[in-house]
Amino acid sequence: MSLRFTIQELSEYVEEIFPQIKDDFEILEISEQASRVRLKVNFKHLRPGNTVSGPSIFSLVDCTAYMVILAKLGKEALAVTTNCSIDFMRKPSGETDLIAKCEILKFGKSLVVADAKVYSEGMEKPVARAALTYSIPP
Amino acid sequence: MSLRFTIQELSEYVEEIFPQIKDDFEILEISEQASRVRLKVNFKHLRPGNTVSGPSIFSLVDCTAYMVILAKLGKEALAVTTNCSIDFMRKPSGETDLIAKCEILKFGKSLVVADAKVYSEGMEKPVARAALTYSIPP
Amino acid sequence: MSLRFTIQELSEYVEEIFPQIKDDFEILEISEQASRVRLKVNFKHLRPGNTVSGPSIFSLVDCTAYMVILAKLGKEALAVTTNCSIDFMRKPSGETDLIAKCEILKFGKSLVVADAKVYSEGMEKPVARAALTYSIPP
Amino acid sequence: MSLRFTIQELSEYVEEIFPQIKDDFEILEISEQASRVRLKVNFKHLRPGNTVSGPSIFSLVDCTAYMVILAKLGKEALAVTTNCSIDFMRKPSGETDLIAKCEILKFGKSLVVADAKVYSEGMEKPVARAALTYSIPP
Repeated sequence: MSLRFTIQELSEYVEEIFPQIKDDFEILEISEQASRVRLKVNFKHLRPGNTVSGPSIFSLVDCTAYMVILAKLGKEALAVTTNCSIDFMRKPSGETDLIAKCEILKFGKSLVVADAKVYSEGMEKPVARAALTYSIPP
Repeated sequence: MSLRFTIQELSEYVEEIFPQIKDDFEILEISEQASRVRLKVNFKHLRPGNTVSGPSIFSLVDCTAYMVILAKLGKEALAVTTNCSIDFMRKPSGETDLIAKCEILKFGKSLVVADAKVYSEGMEKPVARAALTYSIPP
Repeated sequence: MSLRFTIQELSEYVEEIFPQIKDDFEILEISEQASRVRLKVNFKHLRPGNTVSGPSIFSLVDCTAYMVILAKLGKEALAVTTNCSIDFMRKPSGETDLIAKCEILKFGKSLVVADAKVYSEGMEKPVARAALTYSIPP
Repeated sequence: MSLRFTIQELSEYVEEIFPQIKDDFEILEISEQASRVRLKVNFKHLRPGNTVSGPSIFSLVDCTAYMVILAKLGKEALAVTTNCSIDFMRKPSGETDLIAKCEILKFGKSLVVADAKVYSEGMEKPVARAALTYSIPP
């Protein structure tokens, strides 16, 4: 199975169907097994303490994994997130973009399982780690 | 340990320190062991398919549990979310508010563990369920 | 959909196909939406510190939820555990049986989602809480 | 911080304090950031379908991560597992040993966060993946 979108096409498609996240994300890499996406951190992503909010980090990992599913299944993709278990390990700066790296562990007929780690750009140790499961309807 | 805030005081305090979520949430109930919070669903909370986005639901459960911690520990509360495992079970309508009900399972010296269920207002079965852990620094 | 087994029949069936757990569990209650199972704690379930080991508690919650699936789907049930997120909150005594109470949150065509809480018999507060997901093949 | 045990010393110590798992595990590698442990699969680890049971896999990932904590903190280690989120992705053969590879993502003063993947020996793709959190008392 090869990819149905280039990064450029995928970015345009997401902006078209999902205007709420326009300008938030930049897709950096995408392949059949992995993806890398940047969260362009701005005021709306912050929480008290000048750090990035949990929901913004959740949003980033979910988006990063979903890009692989969309790229593989195409515009008809109806996969939905069924579970996400996320660990927040370090406090990212609110002045730095976040980069998520996602690895697909299983791309089954009905379930996709992915791992993601989130880095504050330039830091070596991850700020968060997530396990995600998606269900693909028959 | 009694509560350090009324619902009114807590709402004002959150709006003061966390302007990004102003107008999103309404605290409906709060006690030492439980809380109930409404997400006033609007355009920014939606994703394609006229449903509420995963990050918005995450934001609701995290806020609902955090309100109990804040009400018990007061303004000095420095508790941080360390883990959230969330299951998305049913697709909520994008035209209906969501209500989260949180129950505190453990309020320890260093860890707080909570359960939350999320309902589309008026529906009997939950759309999501979450397990949350918070770490309280010494 | 009604239940295909009585407690007695279900107990006998499990002992027949799964001899490794013979004598470990006692099914106390079973319905379409819930179940309650006892772990008869003995030496093999303990870990250092005279407490019940994590894998034994995991085994109990998995068994408790699976009993409902088996009772609803019958002997042809091929459901498999796909995810379990478990929080260990209090240290149970190694001299007391454990009781798990399971609630089914969703019994879908392809996914079953359940909640379980585990109590040291006679204690009011739970020692562990688990979220479980099962996949049912088409 | 260097390791307080060699593999040989650690193995002997575990067998001494935790006789219930004697002969089940073989520590293959251990460092400050990672570990690798074999589960010597035998009858007691199996479930119907000639595959390894979920609790046995849980036991393996928990043991693999705990070995690093024990090796770093020494015999006084009182760390306890507080959360494990585990995804079962593929069905391992009941005739093959399992190998878990654990990576420490954070070794904090009060919390340790680890990732583990489990392989059926000789297979390239993981059968399970787990996220584990341990609490270290002050």
